Amino acid sequence: MYKIEKIEGGVCAAKGFFASGIAAGLKGNNALDIAFIYSPDLCNVAAKFTTNKMQAAPIRHFKQEKITQTNFILVNSKNANAMTGAKGVADIEEILQEVQKTHTNIFSPIMSSTGVIGVRLPKEKIIQGAKQFDLTQKEPSKAAHAIMTTDTFAKESAYEVTLKNGQSFRVGAMAKGAGMINPAMATMLCFITTDADISQEEMQAALDELTPLTFNAISVDGDTSTNDTVLLLSNKKSGCYDKEAFKEALRMLMLELAKMMVKDGEGATKLVTYRITGAANDQDAQTIAKALTNSLLVKTALYGEDPNWGRIASTVGASGAEAYEEKLRICFEDLCVYDRGEIHFDTKMEQAAAAIMQRDEFIISCDLGIGNGAFDAYGCDLGYEYVKINADYRT
Amino acid sequence: MYKIEKIEGGVCAAKGFFASGIAAGLKGNNALDIAFIYSPDLCNVAAKFTTNKMQAAPIRHFKQEKITQTNFILVNSKNANAMTGAKGVADIEEILQEVQKTHTNIFSPIMSSTGVIGVRLPKEKIIQGAKQFDLTQKEPSKAAHAIMTTDTFAKESAYEVTLKNGQSFRVGAMAKGAGMINPAMATMLCFITTDADISQEEMQAALDELTPLTFNAISVDGDTSTNDTVLLLSNKKSGCYDKEAFKEALRMLMLELAKMMVKDGEGATKLVTYRITGAANDQDAQTIAKALTNSLLVKTALYGEDPNWGRIASTVGASGAEAYEEKLRICFEDLCVYDRGEIHFDTKMEQAAAAIMQRDEFIISCDLGIGNGAFDAYGCDLGYEYVKINADYRT
Repeated sequence: MYKIEKIEGGVCAAKGFFASGIAAGLKGNNALDIAFIYSPDLCNVAAKFTTNKMQAAPIRHFKQEKITQTNFILVNSKNANAMTGAKGVADIEEILQEVQKTHTNIFSPIMSSTGVIGVRLPKEKIIQGAKQFDLTQKEPSKAAHAIMTTDTFAKESAYEVTLKNGQSFRVGAMAKGAGMINPAMATMLCFITTDADISQEEMQAALDELTPLTFNAISVDGDTSTNDTVLLLSNKKSGCYDKEAFKEALRMLMLELAKMMVKDGEGATKLVTYRITGAANDQDAQTIAKALTNSLLVKTALYGEDPNWGRIASTVGASGAEAYEEKLRICFEDLCVYDRGEIHFDTKMEQAAAAIMQRDEFIISCDLGIGNGAFDAYGCDLGYEYVKINADYRT
Repeated sequence: MYKIEKIEGGVCAAKGFFASGIAAGLKGNNALDIAFIYSPDLCNVAAKFTTNKMQAAPIRHFKQEKITQTNFILVNSKNANAMTGAKGVADIEEILQEVQKTHTNIFSPIMSSTGVIGVRLPKEKIIQGAKQFDLTQKEPSKAAHAIMTTDTFAKESAYEVTLKNGQSFRVGAMAKGAGMINPAMATMLCFITTDADISQEEMQAALDELTPLTFNAISVDGDTSTNDTVLLLSNKKSGCYDKEAFKEALRMLMLELAKMMVKDGEGATKLVTYRITGAANDQDAQTIAKALTNSLLVKTALYGEDPNWGRIASTVGASGAEAYEEKLRICFEDLCVYDRGEIHFDTKMEQAAAAIMQRDEFIISCDLGIGNGAFDAYGCDLGYEYVKINADYRT
C-alpha cells in the first residue's frame, strides 16, 4: 500500500535538487533560453535517447563520456547542435570546461540542446550565461520556460509517494516538446529528478519499460528527432524506495507530460486517445494505434470535427497489422459506428458522433476482434496553424 | 531498335477500345460520374491492387470471380463501395447483371469504384446510367472526367511504339488520384489499354515490375487506399509485340500518370523528385526516399520554400535505413548544402537554395556514401489547401 499525491515544485520537488533558467541572448528579447539542474549530491543517471541515426552532438557526448553519474545538466534552446559532427561535440566539451571553472563543484556535467539543426552553438553566449547561474536557486518554472521552443506553455509536474511505513520520496520533472506531430524538429526533452533510494539499474529498467507506453505512445511516426532525450537523476536523499510505487509515480509523471506535449501540438485543438483492443497481439495493437495518430487523413478529419469512420477503417487496414472487415468495431466514446460488418451510421448517429468530436478530449476505440492485444496511443488534430508554424519556422 | 511517340486518344488510343462517361446523378449538377471501357474483342487482364487489409468490394469481386479475361469495365466515382462487406459485393453482382441485360455482348465485366468509404452504392442510379452507355463511342476524355473525385484535372496519356520492322502497337490509359499525399481517401485508379500482342503472364510481370517504380514511388505512406487499382487490358489487335519496347512505353505511361497525381496533390504547388544514391542497398534507398515524401516537416518546409536541409537530414536519420552523418551529402539540384560533415550554408547559399525551391519542379538529392543503392521517389508540398480539402471533404 502506498499513496501518490500530485505536488508543486517540478524538477525541484525532490529533496536536494536546484534549477533555474536565465536569458543568455540565444532567443533575444531577454527571453529565458538556458537552464540548469543541479544537485550538491552526486546522482545516478538513467537515459533514453532518440533512435534517429543522426544523433545530435549532446547525445554523442553523453555516450562518449559513458556517463552514469552526474550532478549538473545544462540545457539550451534555439539550437539543437545536430549535424555538427565532431566539432559539435568539441563545442560541448569547451562549454562545460569553461562552466566548471566558475562552478567548481560540478561533476561529470551533461549538456542537452533543442532548436534548429545544422548550425554551430553560440558558445560564448552560452558560457557567459552559464557562468551567471546561481546554483542555490530553486526556480523550476524558470528552467521549464528556458527550454521551450515552439511550446506554448511550460511543462512541469511532480508527485510525492508516501509508503505504508510513513516514509516518502518524490519524483518531479520538466519537459519540452510541442507535440510529436512535429518530432523531427520539436525535439522532445524530459528531465526527471527523484530522491528515491533507487539503483541505476532499476532506474534504467523503469525508463525502458515506461517510455514505450508514454513518450513513445504519443503521435510519433518513424520521424523521431535528432535530439530526443529523457534523463532520470536520483540523489537517493529520501533514503527510501518501493519499486512498485516508484514505477507507478514515474508512469503517471511521464504520461502526464507526454499528454501535455500532444495538447501543445503545433496548432492542435484536441487530444484523442486511440484505444486499440482485440488485436492479434500487443505489437499489432501498437502498430494500429500509431498509424491512427499519424494519419494525415484522420488528423484533418479530427480538425474538421467530421466523424469520418471510413478513414479510421482504412488506416487500420493499411497499417500492416492483422485486421478483418467482418471482425472490426469502431467507436467514438460509447457510440459504436461500425460493428463487425454492420454500418450504424444514420443522420442521428452522425450528429451524436460529431458532438463528441467537438470535445477537447475524447476516445476513439477500435476492437479488432482477433486476440487480446491492446495499446493506447495519444494523438491530436492537424489544422491550418500547424502548416503556418512549420512553413515559417526556420526563416 | 524501336521508337516511342506520345499520341492523343488516352484509353481509346489502342485499336478496338471504346470508352465514355455520363452523368448518372451520383455527383449531381449533371457532372460526369460513371464511365466504361469496352472492347468488342475479349482482352487479357493483368491487375495490381491495394495492400490495404480492408479491400473494397470491387477488389473482392474481381478476386472472387478470378477474372483473367474481360471486355468491359464499369467505373463509378463518389462512392468507394468499401467497408460494405458481402452486401457490397452482392451490389456489384446485381449491377453488372442488370447492365448485361442491356449490353448483351459484355463478357466477365469488372467494376471499379472511388469515393466515400462506408456507404452502400446507389445501385439504381448506376444501373440506369450504365444502360444508357453507347459502347460505340470513343470519348476517352469524358471517361477520364467521370472517374475524378478531388482531382482538379483529368489524367490521360498514350504512346505509340513503332518497331524496327515498321509494325506498331499502342498503350493508352486514364487515371485518377489527387496526390497520394492523401492515399487513404483519394484512391488511385488507373486503367491501361493496349493492342500489343502480349500474353497475360507478360502483362502481369510488367505491372509487377513497374508499379513499385511509378505509382508506388509517389508520396505514399503505409496509408494505401481501400480501393487502389491498376488494370491492364490487351486485345492483341495490333498483332505485334516487343518485350523491351512495351515495357519502356508502359513505364513512361505509368510514370507520367503517377507524376500527374503528385502534381494534382490536394493543395500541392510543387513536384519534388527525391533522388537517393549511395545507399547500402536499393531497399534502403527506397525507405529513405519514401520517408522524405511523407515527412510533414519536409512537406511544410517545401510549402514555405525554406531550404531547411536539417529536416531532410533528420528524416534520413529517422527512416531506419543505414546512414552516417559523416558520409551524407544533401543537394538542392546542383547546389550541395551539406557535404559529409561540412555545412555549406551561408546566406548566399541559402538564397540560391530558396530560389530553386520557388520552382514548380526540382530535385532534392541525398547521397548516403555507403553503397550503390538508388531510388527516385516523387512528392509534393503540404499547404493550407490540403487541410481545407481534407477537413471538409465528407460533410
